[in-house]
Amino acid sequence: MSIQTFSYLPLLTFTKKVFTSIGCSEAEAATASEVLLSADLRGIDSHGVARLSGYVRLWEAKRVNTSPAIAIIHETPSTAVVDGDSGLGLVVAPYAMEVAIDKARAVGSGWVSVQNSNHFGIAASHAMMALGHDMIGIAMTNASPLVAPTFSVDRMLGTNPICVAAPAGEEPPFVADLATTTAANGKLEILQRKGLPTPEGWVQDANGHPSTDPHELKKGGALLPLGGDKEHGSHKGYALGAIVDIFSALLSGANYAPWVPPFPAYVPMPARQPGKGIGHFFGAMRIDAFRPAADFKTHMDSWIRGFRSAKPIAGEKRVLVPGDPERETEETRKTAGIPLVDAVVQDLRQLADRLGIEFIDQ
Amino acid sequence: MSIQTFSYLPLLTFTKKVFTSIGCSEAEAATASEVLLSADLRGIDSHGVARLSGYVRLWEAKRVNTSPAIAIIHETPSTAVVDGDSGLGLVVAPYAMEVAIDKARAVGSGWVSVQNSNHFGIAASHAMMALGHDMIGIAMTNASPLVAPTFSVDRMLGTNPICVAAPAGEEPPFVADLATTTAANGKLEILQRKGLPTPEGWVQDANGHPSTDPHELKKGGALLPLGGDKEHGSHKGYALGAIVDIFSALLSGANYAPWVPPFPAYVPMPARQPGKGIGHFFGAMRIDAFRPAADFKTHMDSWIRGFRSAKPIAGEKRVLVPGDPERETEETRKTAGIPLVDAVVQDLRQLADRLGIEFIDQ
Repeated sequence: MSIQTFSYLPLLTFTKKVFTSIGCSEAEAATASEVLLSADLRGIDSHGVARLSGYVRLWEAKRVNTSPAIAIIHETPSTAVVDGDSGLGLVVAPYAMEVAIDKARAVGSGWVSVQNSNHFGIAASHAMMALGHDMIGIAMTNASPLVAPTFSVDRMLGTNPICVAAPAGEEPPFVADLATTTAANGKLEILQRKGLPTPEGWVQDANGHPSTDPHELKKGGALLPLGGDKEHGSHKGYALGAIVDIFSALLSGANYAPWVPPFPAYVPMPARQPGKGIGHFFGAMRIDAFRPAADFKTHMDSWIRGFRSAKPIAGEKRVLVPGDPERETEETRKTAGIPLVDAVVQDLRQLADRLGIEFIDQ
Repeated sequence: MSIQTFSYLPLLTFTKKVFTSIGCSEAEAATASEVLLSADLRGIDSHGVARLSGYVRLWEAKRVNTSPAIAIIHETPSTAVVDGDSGLGLVVAPYAMEVAIDKARAVGSGWVSVQNSNHFGIAASHAMMALGHDMIGIAMTNASPLVAPTFSVDRMLGTNPICVAAPAGEEPPFVADLATTTAANGKLEILQRKGLPTPEGWVQDANGHPSTDPHELKKGGALLPLGGDKEHGSHKGYALGAIVDIFSALLSGANYAPWVPPFPAYVPMPARQPGKGIGHFFGAMRIDAFRPAADFKTHMDSWIRGFRSAKPIAGEKRVLVPGDPERETEETRKTAGIPLVDAVVQDLRQLADRLGIEFIDQ
């Protein structure tokens, strides 16, 4: 498997051209590209440019509207529902997060549930928008059903991630971004490429039996909720995924549970659609709506340093704070570039050809 | 191990007498007793009357103030910080949850972080207060350090539970109440009594090695975050416990991380105390701050029925919805009574003797 490394800026420019070529405005193409590439920078390779052609295919299938009239359809001083008008989640999500931040500025906190959207990239990209405002940011989304609840053969939930980002003082921010499954789909893809089995507790087969085959999803199997099985707390991972679904879709009027539309454009839409598009949920809490931001940050520094100085187990160098690995990857990739596997580079080249855009010259 | 079964009301009356005898007002004793016994009703036996003598010992050690001046010390339209004045968490928590509900009534949502409190019983008891108001309720708390983060030998977090309660229409409400560990401490106690090992991924020993000894906590070992180990997503359980700590204590000014005061009165207070008491966090979101409550409830019914009708795996009769087991236990125990193991009954009898209160005559 060969790898090519691309500098951030040329990749960003190329991605912008792709989005404008399918009808996005300059501003929306810029937002979508920055959100998408934040995944590549942070090392969440499954959610970055590897998905760019997937977004384009959703547009070709008329499942994405690249000139959406995104709007608040209901609101109170601290809450809102946003209708994404079938827009790219990469654009709808930052809009909704801005609404949450505006409300937090006005009344201490803001909470926005979103209907009629599409996949929004990585949750961290949106939650972290709050940090510069001395706010805690929260982002979550539902997704098409790949996960079997505890005791279920059927797939009923998506990998439904939760992100919470909190600012610190001298230390970098706390950023926890987690799928509510034992392992995200991207990790299965890595094992598929390497021809390796999964650990136990990651997947089950089409009959609901435990499996270690990383190809199970294609054969009708399912990902398992965080915990893996009942004995190890999978009912908790299931509950967390369910909470994300309720906040993102039941509050907003989006599709939920097994009826969430798929990302791959070749997968038919669910026959039943109890709501509109996919759902997200965003929150922003102004720190000084609770205590002076400087006090909070001083204690966050102390909290973070406490964890960093915990004694590591044998064979490990250090105890990490949520967000450390992604931030370190971002620091590296900003200067050293973003490594893309050959399959992704080929996919981007074909996309460039198809859209009549020049690919990155390097 | 013999078991005695007690009717709810006599047990409630006895518990109230205990709380008034240590200085609680009639009203606060009633609240504390109802919250404490909600655990026994819902089958969370480790958090109910089994802990009553522990609360009394905290009062004897002057770590609990039974006539607290609980107060809002900072607020915005949608947020507040409550100081519990070292009161019983069983009383401070319902006060704070009421503040959240009042704010949700006024501006759509309310979020309350609490400092200077003590253990609050089960999170579900507080989150469920929102249900009757057609609101979603959220409750979480930090707790004394029993949990080692991923790669850590040291205990740095409590079992830090999260509860989310959402109303439905014809179906019973969704109530997810989960410790952010693989298994709660109460499950270890059951295995200790039975002389059985724990499954893998529940505990580690004092050196950070995996263990299956249910007595590890007493030997300096630790509970493990939901996931168990890195390969199974323990960094996610660790992140969730950390989020609870940040919302409950860093926002409010309570103690955090390894510096949270212990529940057992014989355990010395931590030498360093970066805040006051233990911390909680509560939220309430008015459903119709997002969409009409009737629409939400209709879709919640559909959501719940979807999960109930999912195909169960071999050997299981059904797929459960979060809250099902506890609600079914509550229905049974309300009529058939609450079973208490002999050790708990003896403990309550001794407590009655010590306080000069008559024990339940049956």
